Amino acid sequence: MRILVTNDDGVHAPGIVALAEALRLVGTVTVVAPDRERSAVGHALTLHHPLRVTEIMAGIFAVDGTPTDCVNLGIHALLAGSPDIVVSGVNRGGNLGDDITYSGTVSAALEATLMGIPAIAVSLAANGHGSNYRPAAAFAARLAREVLERGLPRDTFLNVNVPDLPAEELGGPVITSQGKRDYGGDIVAKVDPRGRNYYWIGGNEPVFRDIEGTDFHAVKRGRISVTPLHLDLTNYASLSVLQSWDLSA
Amino acid sequence: MRILVTNDDGVHAPGIVALAEALRLVGTVTVVAPDRERSAVGHALTLHHPLRVTEIMAGIFAVDGTPTDCVNLGIHALLAGSPDIVVSGVNRGGNLGDDITYSGTVSAALEATLMGIPAIAVSLAANGHGSNYRPAAAFAARLAREVLERGLPRDTFLNVNVPDLPAEELGGPVITSQGKRDYGGDIVAKVDPRGRNYYWIGGNEPVFRDIEGTDFHAVKRGRISVTPLHLDLTNYASLSVLQSWDLSA
Amino acid sequence: MRILVTNDDGVHAPGIVALAEALRLVGTVTVVAPDRERSAVGHALTLHHPLRVTEIMAGIFAVDGTPTDCVNLGIHALLAGSPDIVVSGVNRGGNLGDDITYSGTVSAALEATLMGIPAIAVSLAANGHGSNYRPAAAFAARLAREVLERGLPRDTFLNVNVPDLPAEELGGPVITSQGKRDYGGDIVAKVDPRGRNYYWIGGNEPVFRDIEGTDFHAVKRGRISVTPLHLDLTNYASLSVLQSWDLSA
Amino acid sequence: MRILVTNDDGVHAPGIVALAEALRLVGTVTVVAPDRERSAVGHALTLHHPLRVTEIMAGIFAVDGTPTDCVNLGIHALLAGSPDIVVSGVNRGGNLGDDITYSGTVSAALEATLMGIPAIAVSLAANGHGSNYRPAAAFAARLAREVLERGLPRDTFLNVNVPDLPAEELGGPVITSQGKRDYGGDIVAKVDPRGRNYYWIGGNEPVFRDIEGTDFHAVKRGRISVTPLHLDLTNYASLSVLQSWDLSA
Repeated sequence: MRILVTNDDGVHAPGIVALAEALRLVGTVTVVAPDRERSAVGHALTLHHPLRVTEIMAGIFAVDGTPTDCVNLGIHALLAGSPDIVVSGVNRGGNLGDDITYSGTVSAALEATLMGIPAIAVSLAANGHGSNYRPAAAFAARLAREVLERGLPRDTFLNVNVPDLPAEELGGPVITSQGKRDYGGDIVAKVDPRGRNYYWIGGNEPVFRDIEGTDFHAVKRGRISVTPLHLDLTNYASLSVLQSWDLSA
Repeated sequence: MRILVTNDDGVHAPGIVALAEALRLVGTVTVVAPDRERSAVGHALTLHHPLRVTEIMAGIFAVDGTPTDCVNLGIHALLAGSPDIVVSGVNRGGNLGDDITYSGTVSAALEATLMGIPAIAVSLAANGHGSNYRPAAAFAARLAREVLERGLPRDTFLNVNVPDLPAEELGGPVITSQGKRDYGGDIVAKVDPRGRNYYWIGGNEPVFRDIEGTDFHAVKRGRISVTPLHLDLTNYASLSVLQSWDLSA
Repeated sequence: MRILVTNDDGVHAPGIVALAEALRLVGTVTVVAPDRERSAVGHALTLHHPLRVTEIMAGIFAVDGTPTDCVNLGIHALLAGSPDIVVSGVNRGGNLGDDITYSGTVSAALEATLMGIPAIAVSLAANGHGSNYRPAAAFAARLAREVLERGLPRDTFLNVNVPDLPAEELGGPVITSQGKRDYGGDIVAKVDPRGRNYYWIGGNEPVFRDIEGTDFHAVKRGRISVTPLHLDLTNYASLSVLQSWDLSA
Repeated sequence: MRILVTNDDGVHAPGIVALAEALRLVGTVTVVAPDRERSAVGHALTLHHPLRVTEIMAGIFAVDGTPTDCVNLGIHALLAGSPDIVVSGVNRGGNLGDDITYSGTVSAALEATLMGIPAIAVSLAANGHGSNYRPAAAFAARLAREVLERGLPRDTFLNVNVPDLPAEELGGPVITSQGKRDYGGDIVAKVDPRGRNYYWIGGNEPVFRDIEGTDFHAVKRGRISVTPLHLDLTNYASLSVLQSWDLSA
C-alpha cells in the first residue's frame, strides 16, 4: 500500500510526525508537506509561481506551497505511483462545523478526492498546542486500514476530529454530520510604529451550537468524530424554490 | 440598501468595475477588494499578519489580503453598517463544477453566508480575458434585487455563471446543480537559471462531464447558470454505510 | 536619448509620475517600476522566483519585484536598446546619510552603475507624503541633461535630495558628502489577537549629525544636495592598520 | 563576551552551525537568523509587517525576516545586553567585489556597524554547496578574538572570504580591497503552463577582474581575503569635478 501523508502545520509539526509513524505499520509512507505553517489557507492552489521541493530525508518532502499543492505534487510528480490513500494531519486544533472550509488539512483531503484517491483528514481538537497526537494518529491508522479494505462512497472523504485526551480516556468513534458555528466579528484595528493603520482579523473562541449528531457534539463529549463529506455543495432542497423565481428580465 | 462588492481578480479588474456600476442602480455600493489578483486562493483567511486597507476612491477600498479577508473587513470594520447583500465578481473565467472549491470569488460569497449575509458569486465563463462583463453584471443586479426582496434559503448562496456573449445572444437563466470535472495531472518540472529544480502546476483545459441539469451543461448551451450552494458538506446518504463499520477496536 | 525611470514607491506613486513627465523633455522615457511599494528593500535582487511584467500603458511597465529587479529587466529585456541614463525616484522621503544602504531608490541607481549606465537617485526630503514633487523632478531633469552631456566619474552615481519646498523657496544645489545618522533601538513587542508574540521594527525620527558639507546639512538649510557615491566600500585608510595584525596562527 | 551570530542561508544551514560552534570557544553565542534562506536580499529591513521569533533551542532564534531584521532584533530585543561583536556567516558562496551590495550576509555586518557594534561577515568562496565550513569558521573565531581585543577602525567592518579548501591547503590571510566584477545581462524569458510570460534573472558565472590586491585575486590563489569596508560611499575624489558643473539654472 502506498500512503501519501500531508498537513498544514508544516513538515516538522508533531502531529505529522506521529501520523507518519502510525501509518508505517499500514503501508509505505511518503510525506509531502508544506515547509512551514500554512493554516487557514483553505483550498488554495499555487498557479502563478513555481514550487520548490526539498527531500529533507528519504521519503519526506518539504514544499514551499499549500497543502493542496502538496497533494497535487505528491500524486502527479513525487511518488513512484499513484497513492492508495491520502491522510492529512494530525492537525493542531479541531476542524469542526463550518470552519472546515478554511482548513488546509481538510482541503488536502478534498484535493485527493477530486483526483479520485480515498482520503482522510485528522485533527486534534485541542486548545493550544495539544498533547495527545499519538492516540489520534493510531485511530487514523486504524481507519485508513478500514478504508483501504472497504473503499469509500463516491466523491466522499472522511473528516476526523479526535479529543485531546490520553488513549484510555478517549470515547469510541461516532459517525456525525457537520456542525454549525456562530461567527462573531472580531477585527482589531491598530496603528503601526510608523503611524499607519492596520487591521488584524481576530481569534475569538468559536461558539458552536451543541446539536446532537454533529461533530462538535461528539468531540465535546470526549468521543472521536468521523464525518463523511462530499464534493457536491448543491442545496438540492432549494432547487424548486429558485425555479419559482422569475429571472427572465 | 447597502451592498458590499468584492472579487478575486483585484480592485482594478474590469469585472468588478462593471459589477459595481450595475449595482449602483440597486443600492449604495461599497467595494472592498484585493489590491491585486488573488485567484485560486480558495477560502483562505489571513490570521498571522495584519492587513492594510487603502481607500483609493470614496467607497472603494483595496486590501492586501484575500477575498475572504475583504468580506470580513467589509462587514466588521469598513462599512457603516452590516450590508444587506454581498456580491462577488464578475470573475474572469467560469467557476463551475468542483472547481468552485478553489475559487476566491465563490469563497467570498461563502464567507458572507457564514456571517449570515445573503450572497451571490458571479463569473464570466470566458476563455482568456472575456469581453462581455456588462451583461453579466446586469444579470447580477437583476438577481440581487430578487434576493433582497425574497431572501435566500437558510445557509445558502447563489453561484452564477454567465456565458461570454453579448446581451442579445445570452440564453435565459436556468437553476442548476454543481457539475463534475475530470482532473488530469499536469505538472511541469523544469530547471531554473541557477540550476535548481522547480515544479509548476499546469493548466490543462478542464474537462467537464456534460450532465444534464448541471452548471456546465447550461453554460455550454449559452444559458446563464444559477446554482444554490450551501455550507453543509455532509454526505448524509453515506452516514448509515459508515455506521455499519466496526471502528471501535 | 533613452531614459529608464524607476522608483521604490511603486509605479503609481506621484513622485515617479512627476519625474517621468519632466524627463520626457530630455529624451524618450520608459518607466519600469515595482507594481506596489517596495521601500527599505535595499539592493535586493529576486533570484529564486520568476518575475511578472505588465505593460499598463505604452512605455510603462509594472513588475512584481524590487527596484533592482526593475533596472535589470529594463536594461536587459524590456527596452529596445541600452538606456543612456537611469533615473530613480522621486522618492517619498529623503535618502540621507547611512540610510542610503536601506534604500530601494538608491539601490536602483547603484544597479545601473554596476551595469555601466550613468544613474541618478532623486528623493524628496519630506515628512509625510510630500507636496513638491514637481520642482524636484525638474531639477532631476536639469541634472540628467548635464550628466548626459558630461558623463560621470567612473563607477560613480549621484544621490540627490531635494527639500520639500515650492520652486521659488528652494535653495541652489550644493555638492555634498554622505552624512551620519545616530541609530536608536526602537522595537515594539506586542501580542497578536491570537495570543502570539510579534515584534515590529519601529520608526523613530532619524537623528542626523549636523556636519557641514554633508547631505543632511544642505537639506536642513533648504538647499538641494547632490552626493557623488561610488561602488567601492573599501576603507583604504585602514588597510595598513589591519596589515599590522598577526592573523597567521 | 556576548557574540551575536546570524546569516542569510537560514538558521539550519551548515555554515552557521559551524560558525556558532567555533565562536562558543570565544564567548557566549546567541544565534538570531532567518527561518529560511534569504540570500540576495541586500540591506532589506522589514518595516511594514511584524516579525515572528521562535526560540528553536536555548540561545537559537529563528526569525521570519531578513538578516538585517535579525541583527536589529538581536541587538535591541532578544539578547540580554548589547553584543560585543556580531559575526555573520559562514555564507554558502563568496561575497566578492561589487556583489557585496546584494549580500544579506554582508548587510547584516553593515547593520551591526550602523548600531555601533564591531562586525565580521564570513563567506565560503565555494562553487555549489561547499564542503569546508569548519576551517572558515575557525578563522572567523580567530579574527573575532583579535577584533574583540584591538577594536576596529571607526565605522568599519571586515568582509572575509575563505577559499573552499581543507585547513592544511588554506593559504594565509591577506588584507585586500574590494574587487571589480563585469556584469553580463542574462535574463531568461519564458512562458508559464498557463500561457503567461515571465522573466527570470539568470545566474551566469560572475566574471571578476583579476586585479592584484583585491579580494578576488587573493581567493583565486587559495588565500583568505580580509577586506575592511566602511559605511561612507562618498566618492571624495569627484567632489571637485562636480563642483565645477553649473547646476544653478
